[in-house]
Amino acid sequence: MDLTALRTANPEHWTKAAAIRALTLDAIHAANSGHSGMPMGMADVATVLFEKHLKFDASAPNWPDRDRFILSAGHGSMLLYSLLYLTGNPDITLEQIKNFRQMGALTAGHPENFLASGIETTTGPLGQGISNAVGFAMAEEVQRARYGKKVVDHYTYVIAGDGCLMEGVSQEAIGLAGRHELSKLIVLWDNNNITIDGTVDIADRTDQVARFKASGWQVIEIDGHNAAEIDAALTKAKSSNKPTMIACKTHIALGHAAQDTSKGHGALTDPEQLKAAKDAYGWTHGAFEVPSDVLDAWRAIGARGSADRVEWEERFAQISERKQGEFRRAYAFEAPKKLSGAIRSLKKQVSEEQPKWATRKSSEEVLKVVNPIVTETVGGSADLTGSNNTKTDDMGIFLPENRKGRYIHWGIREHGMAAAMNGMALHGGIRPYGGTFMCFTDYARPAMRLAALMKIPTVFVMTHDSIGLGEDGPTHQPVEHLAISRATPNTYVFRPADTVETAEAWEIALSAKETPSVLSLTRQGLPTVRTQHKTKNLTAQGAYVLAEAEGKRQAILIATGSEVAIAMEAKAKLEAMGIGTRVVSMPCMELFAQQDEAYRKRVLPAGAVRVGIEAAVRDGGWDRWLLGERGREAKAGFIGMTSFGASAPADELYEKFGITAEATVAKVKELIG
Amino acid sequence: MDLTALRTANPEHWTKAAAIRALTLDAIHAANSGHSGMPMGMADVATVLFEKHLKFDASAPNWPDRDRFILSAGHGSMLLYSLLYLTGNPDITLEQIKNFRQMGALTAGHPENFLASGIETTTGPLGQGISNAVGFAMAEEVQRARYGKKVVDHYTYVIAGDGCLMEGVSQEAIGLAGRHELSKLIVLWDNNNITIDGTVDIADRTDQVARFKASGWQVIEIDGHNAAEIDAALTKAKSSNKPTMIACKTHIALGHAAQDTSKGHGALTDPEQLKAAKDAYGWTHGAFEVPSDVLDAWRAIGARGSADRVEWEERFAQISERKQGEFRRAYAFEAPKKLSGAIRSLKKQVSEEQPKWATRKSSEEVLKVVNPIVTETVGGSADLTGSNNTKTDDMGIFLPENRKGRYIHWGIREHGMAAAMNGMALHGGIRPYGGTFMCFTDYARPAMRLAALMKIPTVFVMTHDSIGLGEDGPTHQPVEHLAISRATPNTYVFRPADTVETAEAWEIALSAKETPSVLSLTRQGLPTVRTQHKTKNLTAQGAYVLAEAEGKRQAILIATGSEVAIAMEAKAKLEAMGIGTRVVSMPCMELFAQQDEAYRKRVLPAGAVRVGIEAAVRDGGWDRWLLGERGREAKAGFIGMTSFGASAPADELYEKFGITAEATVAKVKELIG
Repeated sequence: MDLTALRTANPEHWTKAAAIRALTLDAIHAANSGHSGMPMGMADVATVLFEKHLKFDASAPNWPDRDRFILSAGHGSMLLYSLLYLTGNPDITLEQIKNFRQMGALTAGHPENFLASGIETTTGPLGQGISNAVGFAMAEEVQRARYGKKVVDHYTYVIAGDGCLMEGVSQEAIGLAGRHELSKLIVLWDNNNITIDGTVDIADRTDQVARFKASGWQVIEIDGHNAAEIDAALTKAKSSNKPTMIACKTHIALGHAAQDTSKGHGALTDPEQLKAAKDAYGWTHGAFEVPSDVLDAWRAIGARGSADRVEWEERFAQISERKQGEFRRAYAFEAPKKLSGAIRSLKKQVSEEQPKWATRKSSEEVLKVVNPIVTETVGGSADLTGSNNTKTDDMGIFLPENRKGRYIHWGIREHGMAAAMNGMALHGGIRPYGGTFMCFTDYARPAMRLAALMKIPTVFVMTHDSIGLGEDGPTHQPVEHLAISRATPNTYVFRPADTVETAEAWEIALSAKETPSVLSLTRQGLPTVRTQHKTKNLTAQGAYVLAEAEGKRQAILIATGSEVAIAMEAKAKLEAMGIGTRVVSMPCMELFAQQDEAYRKRVLPAGAVRVGIEAAVRDGGWDRWLLGERGREAKAGFIGMTSFGASAPADELYEKFGITAEATVAKVKELIG
Repeated sequence: MDLTALRTANPEHWTKAAAIRALTLDAIHAANSGHSGMPMGMADVATVLFEKHLKFDASAPNWPDRDRFILSAGHGSMLLYSLLYLTGNPDITLEQIKNFRQMGALTAGHPENFLASGIETTTGPLGQGISNAVGFAMAEEVQRARYGKKVVDHYTYVIAGDGCLMEGVSQEAIGLAGRHELSKLIVLWDNNNITIDGTVDIADRTDQVARFKASGWQVIEIDGHNAAEIDAALTKAKSSNKPTMIACKTHIALGHAAQDTSKGHGALTDPEQLKAAKDAYGWTHGAFEVPSDVLDAWRAIGARGSADRVEWEERFAQISERKQGEFRRAYAFEAPKKLSGAIRSLKKQVSEEQPKWATRKSSEEVLKVVNPIVTETVGGSADLTGSNNTKTDDMGIFLPENRKGRYIHWGIREHGMAAAMNGMALHGGIRPYGGTFMCFTDYARPAMRLAALMKIPTVFVMTHDSIGLGEDGPTHQPVEHLAISRATPNTYVFRPADTVETAEAWEIALSAKETPSVLSLTRQGLPTVRTQHKTKNLTAQGAYVLAEAEGKRQAILIATGSEVAIAMEAKAKLEAMGIGTRVVSMPCMELFAQQDEAYRKRVLPAGAVRVGIEAAVRDGGWDRWLLGERGREAKAGFIGMTSFGASAPADELYEKFGITAEATVAKVKELIG
């Protein structure tokens, strides 16, 4: 690579890009860790993007109509931090750059959306950013259809690496973007042919150009160090009616001794090589030093969108106040005021009518009430619409010919769905929910974890939540998935017992601002157990006394979801034997854990024997409530699963695995002794 | 679709295929559940494959050199069961067909490999079968290179549906197969354009032909109901030097009122429609009735490979006895006799030398000893070879030009790696292990669960297993992943404290026949804690007393992995204060749970206060050992994580999150009161 030729051909561009490269080298040298090669390789692309195309105003990083810039190759975080600092982002100061990867810095090893403005999403786990981006672009389409082009009209740009494209989820994203003709999605592929283990072709020889084209993308191939080519490609991309992938041929760790090698991917900290690289750039300044003319040029880029943003604010002020309020409310993840009342009246109605619905059906009935009120919801399913009961008639189908549609047929793509839903939530203005079978939590896991880490309220509607799904067998029967989601920090796992609890769970999920929710819903029909209407949302307490012991309390049955009805049946039998039995419904362990000691003690007092009932493994947090919280080993038991399930009718499976009222009664009697 | 024309054009073929369709209809009618459309649509393809191409002997379904037939679209299980019954598989009798999806039947809702011979893998979660198949084909290549074409020379056939191709993992599989030129892998795509939610194109318009070609596949497009075209395509596929995808244009639920509709995907149980379909087939026989001439024709197909198989046995008998023994031993997942001795001498050596290695480095040192002995291992990493320490010099790299290579650069494809490893284990003769960062358990989850369900000893080498990885931050720091794997039935989760325990864990993992193992290994260096050599494998007991209290035992510290050293440090401090403290190392909770009560009581007696220490969430099974097993709430504490981690140097993170000897001492003192 002849750097001198590049420098002299376009000195102003070169210097701006060199600032990114120099800051990257300095920050990683100071941290003694990080990934140098990607920012150094993609500095030219990023410079042209920010200078000539990206619509943003560094002084107002949360401007809703900004273009979104997503660094899918999150290990190259110094690229993003450099850009934010150089353009004048208020959070990412030079001090932050100097503290790259240090305790308390906003400049974490991988970009974390909740640390600083300008970080649109949390990346690092590869393939996530490009998949989030599909959701960003969909959210833009939905909002543009609703609010008009004067208020919503922006692009989503992604920088993705070879790793992003090798991860399977990228195929799901590519297929979705192509199908939905997300023409405002522009992916810049850092085509450097290097991964950690060597050149890409030791593991993959896929023709990425052909692959993207096969899914309906426009593809443009350029030299990623040629500013004019980058500019022209971006211009062409913006006017396409298809999503665009720009294949940017680059040199990883450009100008460094480790250029074009796997070593260049990692932390380049050798002082002499660092100096040599800076020399090659013609960069004669000290560590972390950006000369004022270069910084001024960058700051001008950061201010470039200011006038646009002011004009946008004027246009926004012209739409109706109702619309403005709705727009702002949705961005703030504030539930509409009407929601609580609607939930309450549904609760009252079902407490009276006492339907015997599967909770997936209950969920549909709640959504019928909710979706017309919470107009920012976008629903969908990974090709199980009729099974997940996620669609309501008012939504319309999101398609190129109907951008107002609020329901997405995600196809058989649980992971892509989850990641794109995260993208919608991150974009703002949309509250996404999507369904699949609970067992396929496994497929969606990487994105479900990130929802929790990113503090966004994505809702995962997980139906067919136990052996109760019956004949489809153990491949489809979750036993450990409640445990998986409960073990994940910042995640609400709701397992409602009937329609009332399902409505309460949805109310919490749709009011959450920083916490994703997992709704664990049955395939099989269940009786209504909340037959007495309470206006209060009891699910918000996590657990509560559903039925009090008659006479002396000798046993407490703690159950969730479909097993609450079994607990009630067992209670009736135990009471008939003179054993006073309390039933505690525990639809959300996380919320119960958040209650104060006094409340928890009222629900789970010492003394009585305790039996937990859940058609899942005990590892799902049960020991805390059985052995802890004033319980003890000799007086506690669990009725649930200890193995994978089996293929047979649901009732027979409950018998086979001993999850019955009879087994509960026997366990209580054994514990009472 | 003009069925009459098809019938009359090729009546013998038609009748055989009709038998599959009729059995499918009858079984699903009897079960009142299942998926009719796929077997009915793909019956012609399957009939030609079994009649003219698939090398198998129904009377010897485990013949090692049989062609493998993998039903990736596992919901179409009646296709497989019909084929097995018709060809004379000893397990799948007519009685089993009649008991489809019933308790105890071998004919589960989705095919389960461990229930019956002829079921090569467990499918249903889409995309798994096609990804397993990559491993099957790799295993065949490795074994053929080693044993020669006279002993190993077979194809892997896959039937995959639209769902399989939409799942992201299929892209990982396609990329791998193309890169490795797995020419003996042949995928038959059931191109019926129907999924549960509607036609495929509501969610995807990918040109699958172009997509496969982009990754180096041969693609052949045929009418999936034309026997001659099917035959010709299979013939062409077998002689290619690339993997082949045959796009079979089919009609889902052929001949039924629900043909070509989403309804046709599911259970077609209407008696009149069922009769009409059979009439259209010209099938006049009763339910479950296959006339003897048709059954005879199918049984002849089942016996077709018998002579081949006998000849193979003769050829096999001609290779050296040593090679025969090795071949059989590897198929039986029997560890070589030398393994134990080698592990013991390594243990002795490291107990003496006491290296301060990260356990990922320990693992590499174990592999250096193990790989030359356990010659059936095939190792690899998802592009983190130097970080996972999974490669040893003797292995060679598996590539088209080196089929004897035992190390696979999987690329950035954790899910595809895990699924292909499962395929290798299922194929037989190979014991696969593969590495990634532990946090990316999330990506590999669907295949990790299936390894456990399928009862195969795949080994997952998960390094960088806590906040101890430092600056890469919370996106890369597992906190809930020990809990995830521990909650999964039939999975060993090893978290070794030093090189000795790492060697012991590997010995167990490499001796396992029916249980996958997860090795949780550190990035950071650790002291050797097992400084006194014991020949016995203490890790096999799950937990043991590493250091006894001096004087009266007042505290028991239970720790795993990197936190055992913290426990030892805390013990020293506590003993200095006169508080007798036992340290229990607990490298494998599952194995400890399997010990008898007497042993568990010896390790965890009542009385002393207990503190668990693990840089992960408490939900990972801890309450059982802290509150249960004679423990109690008032006398138990936990030192670990309650949130996601952060980006900073590892030592600072341990301080920040309070996982230190000092915090442990303080907790013990607080509990003693």
